[in-house]
Amino acid sequence: MASSNLDIVAIGDAIVDVIATTDDAFIEERGLPKGGMQLLTAAQADELYAAMGPAREISGGSAANSMAGAAALGLNVAFVGQIANDQLGDIFAHDMLSLGVRFETPAMQAPPPTGRCLILVTPDAQRTMNTCPGASHELTPAALDPDLIRSASVTFLEGYLWGPERPRAAMLEAAKIAHSAGRTVAFTLSESLCIGDRREGVRGMIEAKTADILFGNEDEVRHLTGCGTFDDCLAQLSKHVKTVVITRGPQGAVAVANGERAEIAAAPVERIVDTTGAGDLFAAGFLAGRCRGRPLKACLETGSIAAAEIISHFGARPEANLRELADL
Amino acid sequence: MASSNLDIVAIGDAIVDVIATTDDAFIEERGLPKGGMQLLTAAQADELYAAMGPAREISGGSAANSMAGAAALGLNVAFVGQIANDQLGDIFAHDMLSLGVRFETPAMQAPPPTGRCLILVTPDAQRTMNTCPGASHELTPAALDPDLIRSASVTFLEGYLWGPERPRAAMLEAAKIAHSAGRTVAFTLSESLCIGDRREGVRGMIEAKTADILFGNEDEVRHLTGCGTFDDCLAQLSKHVKTVVITRGPQGAVAVANGERAEIAAAPVERIVDTTGAGDLFAAGFLAGRCRGRPLKACLETGSIAAAEIISHFGARPEANLRELADL
Repeated sequence: MASSNLDIVAIGDAIVDVIATTDDAFIEERGLPKGGMQLLTAAQADELYAAMGPAREISGGSAANSMAGAAALGLNVAFVGQIANDQLGDIFAHDMLSLGVRFETPAMQAPPPTGRCLILVTPDAQRTMNTCPGASHELTPAALDPDLIRSASVTFLEGYLWGPERPRAAMLEAAKIAHSAGRTVAFTLSESLCIGDRREGVRGMIEAKTADILFGNEDEVRHLTGCGTFDDCLAQLSKHVKTVVITRGPQGAVAVANGERAEIAAAPVERIVDTTGAGDLFAAGFLAGRCRGRPLKACLETGSIAAAEIISHFGARPEANLRELADL
Repeated sequence: MASSNLDIVAIGDAIVDVIATTDDAFIEERGLPKGGMQLLTAAQADELYAAMGPAREISGGSAANSMAGAAALGLNVAFVGQIANDQLGDIFAHDMLSLGVRFETPAMQAPPPTGRCLILVTPDAQRTMNTCPGASHELTPAALDPDLIRSASVTFLEGYLWGPERPRAAMLEAAKIAHSAGRTVAFTLSESLCIGDRREGVRGMIEAKTADILFGNEDEVRHLTGCGTFDDCLAQLSKHVKTVVITRGPQGAVAVANGERAEIAAAPVERIVDTTGAGDLFAAGFLAGRCRGRPLKACLETGSIAAAEIISHFGARPEANLRELADL
């Protein structure tokens, strides 16, 4: 069906973020994974929500944030993710469509409801994510439109959605379709994939050359590879992945692509409010630079500009004119 | 049932704000009432929503914002308003309860859904409100708990909810209960009440001494009284209302109470982002000052501090520690 040429199609969680500020004591008392993400059942989410302070709701989802950012940067993008037929689903769909993101995955008509992520932001701007994935994890390969995948230069896969079986099958199927059409597959790591039982599966996926571009942060790639030095991590991943992009927080970012290495410092931010979405927007900026033919270092810089905007306010969706900021 | 002594019980719209930025061209092209409020049908709201940019959702409702502010200022408050049994209703209830606002109005089990207000914020920080009141306008006198009203020092009534018949009847009934218990009734004007057909009804309510405290802005009281000079407006309203509080935007605010007049300049704000809720939070601060026995001018100053905080960010719910800011 898809006839237009897309820059990126992403597959990821379709989630609305519920964002409240809190103090470190609240995080500690409840044993929440500060700076990380945990999955909650509906009952656990209700209980945490009842204990949280007043919140604001802003559409989220890791790859969905990246596509919102990419659209704001002027790219032609699509998103595949599962919402339910409810008010949060309407909000998620509106926020994608109003940015010009093509989003056609039909809403589920039965429970569970649309996913939400209870995000607690501490005074140090760190976010602790508590996700009740809901409908999001009900995505199946049937939701894929092969023509849509084939029409996109890049198929972008979200690590958070790699856990549950059916969405993982959908992502593997999408990667197969993309590769058979000569397209690029990008994969963004998430912390939970890089530790414990899942680590081997992700390494296998990487060794099978499923990802042509790999995004991750320093912690994630250290856990994943088990390498001692940062350079060893890079070298090991580069054996299997054409383009490796690693963010290092305040230390900036590094990319290695086909033997070329580029490095940048972090963009200055006047006041960091909420780090949610920093990696998602970095990936958006990097891919936008790449789709527009920028050199490797300039791609990192575009990523850094987009990430700097997102951490200057609450929520992981851009508020400023990203295209102007990134001169795209 | 109510045994604890409340500072304020408010009756108002139970609404979630859907806030997007836009430019003046969008407001003009669609003939939206810039700086004002219009009521939309569900179909009109869906159509405007589809045309709006990406949004954030933050609980709203004029009197509900005032109660959120009053609770943040340390007051013991309750809210009466109608939500539906849906996700937006859950969000509204959570945001009240998590601030310690007593909110016990049972959710409706049938349509319409919880009300929402599509708020468009232009670069001048002005907000244009497009309200689909939904369940909010289904409030009836049956939702009132007379003991709750009697237990509150102040019963606070929202002008936006004066339009529809049943909520108006509920508010008049609440005023009657409050007065028969020797309590104070406050009423906050809204623009739409002060013009056209409704003007006479509101003047009648004021002349009948339903309100002991009246909040409004300069435009509203000019339209309502039809007086030429500001002092004439004040004098006319003071004939019927013990305490008149009028905000004048950047010109500050004036109050007249039992013959005493106080006046203040507006509190300085570094950057005005979104004026939504300025009047609501002014009322919250004024009432907090009054409930804590502050002199008239200090009540105005407390109102001004609360209003200054709310216009420094998106949304009409406080983000900073209001109690600390207001030294309460």
